[in-house]
Amino acid sequence: MTDGNIVGTGERIQLLHGSGGLMMQRLIREIFFPAFGADNDAGFDDAAEITLHDGPLAFSTDSFVVKPLFFPGGDIGSLAVSGTVNDILMKGAKPYCLSLALIIEEGFPLAELKTIVKSLADTAKIADVRIVTGDTKVVGRGEIDGLVINTSGIGEILPNASISGVNARPGDVLLVSGEVGNHGIAVMAERNGLKLKGNIASDAAPLNASVIPMLERFGESVHVLRDPTRGGVAATINEIAEASKVTVLLDESSLPVGREVEAVSELLGFDPLYLPCEGRFLAFVDGGKAESILRFLREDAGCPDATQIGTVTETSNGEVLMTTVSGGQRIIDMPAGELLPRIC
Amino acid sequence: MTDGNIVGTGERIQLLHGSGGLMMQRLIREIFFPAFGADNDAGFDDAAEITLHDGPLAFSTDSFVVKPLFFPGGDIGSLAVSGTVNDILMKGAKPYCLSLALIIEEGFPLAELKTIVKSLADTAKIADVRIVTGDTKVVGRGEIDGLVINTSGIGEILPNASISGVNARPGDVLLVSGEVGNHGIAVMAERNGLKLKGNIASDAAPLNASVIPMLERFGESVHVLRDPTRGGVAATINEIAEASKVTVLLDESSLPVGREVEAVSELLGFDPLYLPCEGRFLAFVDGGKAESILRFLREDAGCPDATQIGTVTETSNGEVLMTTVSGGQRIIDMPAGELLPRIC
Repeated sequence: MTDGNIVGTGERIQLLHGSGGLMMQRLIREIFFPAFGADNDAGFDDAAEITLHDGPLAFSTDSFVVKPLFFPGGDIGSLAVSGTVNDILMKGAKPYCLSLALIIEEGFPLAELKTIVKSLADTAKIADVRIVTGDTKVVGRGEIDGLVINTSGIGEILPNASISGVNARPGDVLLVSGEVGNHGIAVMAERNGLKLKGNIASDAAPLNASVIPMLERFGESVHVLRDPTRGGVAATINEIAEASKVTVLLDESSLPVGREVEAVSELLGFDPLYLPCEGRFLAFVDGGKAESILRFLREDAGCPDATQIGTVTETSNGEVLMTTVSGGQRIIDMPAGELLPRIC
Repeated sequence: MTDGNIVGTGERIQLLHGSGGLMMQRLIREIFFPAFGADNDAGFDDAAEITLHDGPLAFSTDSFVVKPLFFPGGDIGSLAVSGTVNDILMKGAKPYCLSLALIIEEGFPLAELKTIVKSLADTAKIADVRIVTGDTKVVGRGEIDGLVINTSGIGEILPNASISGVNARPGDVLLVSGEVGNHGIAVMAERNGLKLKGNIASDAAPLNASVIPMLERFGESVHVLRDPTRGGVAATINEIAEASKVTVLLDESSLPVGREVEAVSELLGFDPLYLPCEGRFLAFVDGGKAESILRFLREDAGCPDATQIGTVTETSNGEVLMTTVSGGQRIIDMPAGELLPRIC
């Protein structure tokens, strides 16, 4: 195996890259280890050793099947790190490390794999997490659609955080950290070959820089955190309303939706309320602290478009209502029929 | 959504089961939660909260793409739990919890999914781990081959364990916990439609019941643990020899290979030394303690077929040699060309 090709392969992934032999070692040593700053010597143990604080931990997993793999504002790599990092943050925890598991189709271009690995590494750096353990499988042509990624992650729950979907209560104010729907529209537009004027790009990004400072300062007043991914704001708030047994009243006029997202949504027949975000969070916070938290998010935590979009009005079996721009009120249901597959 | 069908679907998975809406909730509530003993109320948070001991932890991930999904002695569910549990054990850690991420093809039969979920739950029970967090994605027909599973897991490293692939040293004795090659042959036979006489079954199983007692009693004397999965005993020992910078001398006559595995290997053209196991471990142990450990494994730890198969002879750049049954000596290489895809 002294050929000059990187990982001994020419320019495409081969089944041998998943066989547990020399070619797999080279793939890992030549592509993954340098990107993730791994130590060549200690790298082949079956598990990573980590040492965390002795308080409670958050543990989360997510698979990424987004299609296409590359879209305006990101790719499956940035998405895979952001998604799990954000799920850990939404539990009030500081992300510490990730695992990375790739399933690659035979024939997948090495150049694309390297771009995605760089994107994984760059996003992990931004999110201040280490990718400490991994797995690579290769399957035959046609047995998978290019590449899917799983990341799992561990974080340390902040001492003053007590966050859960069951904790929303009457009097809480609902904040969103920025404009919604951009990720969904960016992916759908790319998939449909739509040439967008303007600058719609996915919002996919790790939320550490806004969530951690907010929790350090206002942890006790933050009751629920959730990123509105699949099913968008509508599904996420329905889940929380049901888990917390409360009624949430949204205000349509305050929902931050970009002009271009709104236009493309209309064109493609989507309601932005149901579009996934991958770099936004929803926070149910103590009503008395909402203004301070909102100001902090806007001025000190990098969320200039953060807005109040609703309130928790009463205990109930879990209901989401919306005051419409025309002044009426309608029920916002869990999505029952929407089909937005492979968006994350 | 008041139809009587389970998860509202008829008998097959639909894209809607992955959309983040009502159908996904029902799939999770009606199939996953009951199987894994999850609390219906707290189940939809983005991450699980866990509290572990304050010592070092092991963290591992593995994706499972085995084909076919069902094989003699197991299925992708039992394999997915055993694989990650064993990777944690191989770091000298007691497995504590797992994440579970499913990617399912549209049209996948619900009955098969339920069988696999039961198998995941049953194996988790045997391994004494909880499945605490999960993710479900559904992709379109033809975009994946039925079902793939990722499990990641966390374990608590035992206080007297200091185990790593770099720790083999001259004087060490190499033990194997049982017959090798059964998993590989069981899967390959099933895939090739071979009707096997006799009883070849996959060895896939969690190794807790043998590894934990061995480490509690002999932890300080166990230097390396590894389960010989992809690439089999040959690849695994090559990796360890290279990482530890030692020469390992195997004894061909002592390698425990079942008669049927040997026969089918010959028929299909495989060398058992390169066949994957999913319920065996290799241990490099202190030469002075090897006999006691071996006796303990055989008599008290449920490994009646445990055997010494080699020794570490000297420091080197990492070399694996084998004394053959005919009395000669040959080099055992990392597999460079073997093709045994989708075996795990």
